[in-house]
Amino acid sequence: MSATPLAYVDGAFVPAADACLPIEDLGLQRGYGIFDYLRVSGSVPLFLDDHLDRFLRSADIMRLPLAHDRQGLESIIHEVIDSEALTVSGIRILLTGGPSSDGYTISSPRLAVIRQPLSAPPGQLPATGIGLCSYGYQRQLSSVKTTDYLMAVWLQPWLKERGGDDILYHDGGLVRECPRSNVFLVDEVGFLVTPKDGMLPGITRKQVLAVAERIGIPSVQREVRLEELHRAREVFITSSTRRIVPVRQIDDHILSAPGPVTQMLWDAFLAHEQAYLRAHAR
Amino acid sequence: MSATPLAYVDGAFVPAADACLPIEDLGLQRGYGIFDYLRVSGSVPLFLDDHLDRFLRSADIMRLPLAHDRQGLESIIHEVIDSEALTVSGIRILLTGGPSSDGYTISSPRLAVIRQPLSAPPGQLPATGIGLCSYGYQRQLSSVKTTDYLMAVWLQPWLKERGGDDILYHDGGLVRECPRSNVFLVDEVGFLVTPKDGMLPGITRKQVLAVAERIGIPSVQREVRLEELHRAREVFITSSTRRIVPVRQIDDHILSAPGPVTQMLWDAFLAHEQAYLRAHAR
Repeated sequence: MSATPLAYVDGAFVPAADACLPIEDLGLQRGYGIFDYLRVSGSVPLFLDDHLDRFLRSADIMRLPLAHDRQGLESIIHEVIDSEALTVSGIRILLTGGPSSDGYTISSPRLAVIRQPLSAPPGQLPATGIGLCSYGYQRQLSSVKTTDYLMAVWLQPWLKERGGDDILYHDGGLVRECPRSNVFLVDEVGFLVTPKDGMLPGITRKQVLAVAERIGIPSVQREVRLEELHRAREVFITSSTRRIVPVRQIDDHILSAPGPVTQMLWDAFLAHEQAYLRAHAR
Repeated sequence: MSATPLAYVDGAFVPAADACLPIEDLGLQRGYGIFDYLRVSGSVPLFLDDHLDRFLRSADIMRLPLAHDRQGLESIIHEVIDSEALTVSGIRILLTGGPSSDGYTISSPRLAVIRQPLSAPPGQLPATGIGLCSYGYQRQLSSVKTTDYLMAVWLQPWLKERGGDDILYHDGGLVRECPRSNVFLVDEVGFLVTPKDGMLPGITRKQVLAVAERIGIPSVQREVRLEELHRAREVFITSSTRRIVPVRQIDDHILSAPGPVTQMLWDAFLAHEQAYLRAHAR
């Protein structure tokens, strides 16, 4: 193990504190970049295959050619992880537009892998839910994990003023996502429902749908209207950093949280995550 | 004059080749940043006051507190310009979200001023116009010069496939702008017309409206529909780097270009620019 925490930047491992990119990079000049972010438990990157699948898909849609194959990416990620012992951390894999002679044309994207401190997610399902404030907004190229969080950052003061915990994007009343989480509801007959289109397909979302199937909770991916959330039995959001978080309020609508289905899914997801960690122990 | 071309980055002048920003900056991580870009003729930054007005307004709307006042910005810009003798160049003033402990909260934005090579604009109005391809898209926070050019960069292969020279954004048929230019038309009675809302208010746009008034061409800023461009007498776009560029085609609609009003505006604008340069000679 190295004495210095390392980052990988554009072809070389460097001390993490020195990780920087040229100002003329399209990632900064034109906001053109993708990333993925995953939680690392000890030295195990959680659901790495899923994150790499999404990262490679994002790169493809954004027409950002990658100099590394999947195995090359994995080995960079492991080398960054192994440079410092941390109980919980986050790995950010960033791919930017790189240099460009005309400020538009992509030639050689820059890859960076950095590790960031992360608080451990709670050990059990949070006993009190969070409040969401809805906002009409459709993310650009929503199936891609771009670095475009312009509206999310810009809306933070608006969110604080309203006393909310997170923003819920909808497009003309169709539920999309929170800036860093997916949204689920449990409907009146006990179905698990989550939006199908117009949002980033989250890795925790995918895993929650898988564990739901395993424990016999029927689920459906389809268009979801904002009013459906208001009258849902349960609502929760999912993310790689926090797993499952119950929602107790959406704008002025109060919900009971956490609900029994959310609890079952939390328990099953936690067991699933622990099995993953055992299977991938390094 | 220094031996090395300089850039200003986050509090210090550094060799231009070393200008970089930390990867964890919100400008890269969250695409949260603004900029302004101006043409420099010799050592004179053109229409600097207008560009600084817009830059300060952009910073304000984006809630990015600036450590420098207007005079401080001017003196940084001049120091960067004076570090290298160039006939024509571009100055980029960038303000990013800076570091953030939670990846969202803005505390101390980072300012950078870099100079980039630039071809001189043509000495006379281009004799042949360009072709625009229309695309339904509304820029986020359109009155702000954000670094968000995600769609513009992403659409470049689409534009090339169609053989177009630039993209024309419209929102449900309402003309907005080109990614780096404003759009004008001359209507059937000789009025100069340009969109009023939903686009970035360009500095060349502002100056063209001013010279139009001076030479007696009536103008109006209002909603403009795509169909109006198709049947316009003349269409042109404006930008700081290219002044005025005639448009000869929009999708499948052919226009005559350049037209007489465009030519009058070019002549008046060029004289206006030369007067500015004389008045601001350093």
